[in-house]
Amino acid sequence: MTSPVLLLLRDPSGATGHDAVAADQPVALATDLGITRGDGIFETITVVDGIPQALDAHLTRLAHSAALLELPRPHEPAWREAVFAAIDAHDEVAEAFIKLVYSRGIEGSGVPTGWVWLQPSADFTRERTEGIDVVLLDRGYASTIATTAPWLLQGAKTLSYALNRAAIREAARRGADDALFVSTDGYLLEGPTANVLLRLDGRIVTPKTDLGILAGTTQQSIFEIAQVNGYPTSYELLTPADLMRADAAWLVSSVRNAAPIRSVDGVARAIDAELTQSINAGLAARTA
Amino acid sequence: MTSPVLLLLRDPSGATGHDAVAADQPVALATDLGITRGDGIFETITVVDGIPQALDAHLTRLAHSAALLELPRPHEPAWREAVFAAIDAHDEVAEAFIKLVYSRGIEGSGVPTGWVWLQPSADFTRERTEGIDVVLLDRGYASTIATTAPWLLQGAKTLSYALNRAAIREAARRGADDALFVSTDGYLLEGPTANVLLRLDGRIVTPKTDLGILAGTTQQSIFEIAQVNGYPTSYELLTPADLMRADAAWLVSSVRNAAPIRSVDGVARAIDAELTQSINAGLAARTA
Repeated sequence: MTSPVLLLLRDPSGATGHDAVAADQPVALATDLGITRGDGIFETITVVDGIPQALDAHLTRLAHSAALLELPRPHEPAWREAVFAAIDAHDEVAEAFIKLVYSRGIEGSGVPTGWVWLQPSADFTRERTEGIDVVLLDRGYASTIATTAPWLLQGAKTLSYALNRAAIREAARRGADDALFVSTDGYLLEGPTANVLLRLDGRIVTPKTDLGILAGTTQQSIFEIAQVNGYPTSYELLTPADLMRADAAWLVSSVRNAAPIRSVDGVARAIDAELTQSINAGLAARTA
Repeated sequence: MTSPVLLLLRDPSGATGHDAVAADQPVALATDLGITRGDGIFETITVVDGIPQALDAHLTRLAHSAALLELPRPHEPAWREAVFAAIDAHDEVAEAFIKLVYSRGIEGSGVPTGWVWLQPSADFTRERTEGIDVVLLDRGYASTIATTAPWLLQGAKTLSYALNRAAIREAARRGADDALFVSTDGYLLEGPTANVLLRLDGRIVTPKTDLGILAGTTQQSIFEIAQVNGYPTSYELLTPADLMRADAAWLVSSVRNAAPIRSVDGVARAIDAELTQSINAGLAARTA
């Protein structure tokens, strides 16, 4: 078997297919705007027993991010074909992840760069069962930022994630596993690589997606699972006080799935092991 | 001659030298955090008649950015040696630029990636003489951001420049050449790739560098030139009103040098052609 798998799209915005290349073969020129300017977008898709989860939602968001960055529209069938080709090229494993990377390409060329990468996922059993310690970090932006300053690209999943990584380092420095951003006007936003969900007064809730945050594919799947299980769901303006009084809270993302938040800024809070297990089982059982 | 020149550092944080590679040879793996996360830093240095300008200041800022991102400290002599080797490998041209790119490297490897790129510069005669049209854009952050939220990496020159590029597209959409960011509390900050300088009440002034902006190498050189020419210089809290009443204003950066601002949000303002010429001549005459 080949692992990891790397497929280079001949043209990420055209129906021109892809080429398999060795994973240890460099793929980006020194002038690729993806590396010189973080000027591009990505998606990370979890693959369970050979099924790419929420693929439609990921491809839709890729196109949305491309529009926000004014990149050529990704050719959806070409990306979809490469996703399934990557899965076919790999031995079936319980959990793998696929990363779609789409950059503006060589400066001045107008030709974007794109590839699909697949490798087995790390084991997140501990995070999913024992939970994670989270710290709240100021995002520096007001909750209205996506409307007032769209050039800041909030809501696009860009390759410019240096600050997301710095936030996770800051969390580690404070002895925590992850961070949760708060707006300058006091609303819960998102984690550096995850959405936040709460069970609050019998509802499953998450911050409104017009607050300059990413619309989460895993969050959307969990809303569907919750509705099937009789929970009302809603997008709301939520505060750190809501996080503390919620009877369960999670950071949710494509590969780690639902990780219950067991402490916030060092203050312990309850986790619901049974509901978490049920959500993660529901996520793993998705057939698309 | 070889043009452009690309030199790959064997270890950007060690004294291990570099290798010349063809400019059209890919240099970054698909897992390089420089491209997957914009997780790295850069510098752009102008080279006039074979002399890299303000090299010490650029290398100092590279080390400062590395510290803010907790990257291994760049090995200064190795980078300096690669800069001069790149210049030696290229025919002498009137103006060239060198880009230093330093990424965190392959995820999990702990080994950073680094290279030096040199190519002849574009002709900026028009921008330097006729001036540029600028629009003011909200940066979304308060002027205190570098102190209150250091994890946002303001003040580091990172590879995560997607929003800087989006701001320039927004300026173009409004019919302008460039943008100038303003803080949420109403202070002038910086352009997406430049600092702003004003001649105000007989002084040459620029925004304070603790406002979450980059300390500009070109701005520092201009302060030195201004002082020699009898102008007092200072770092101040400046507002859009100061920009409009200043008797001259520039965006200054390493390759374009001083570009006089001839309009702000469509409102014409005076340029000082003689002083601009004198500043740009002073910049071109730097011997280090």
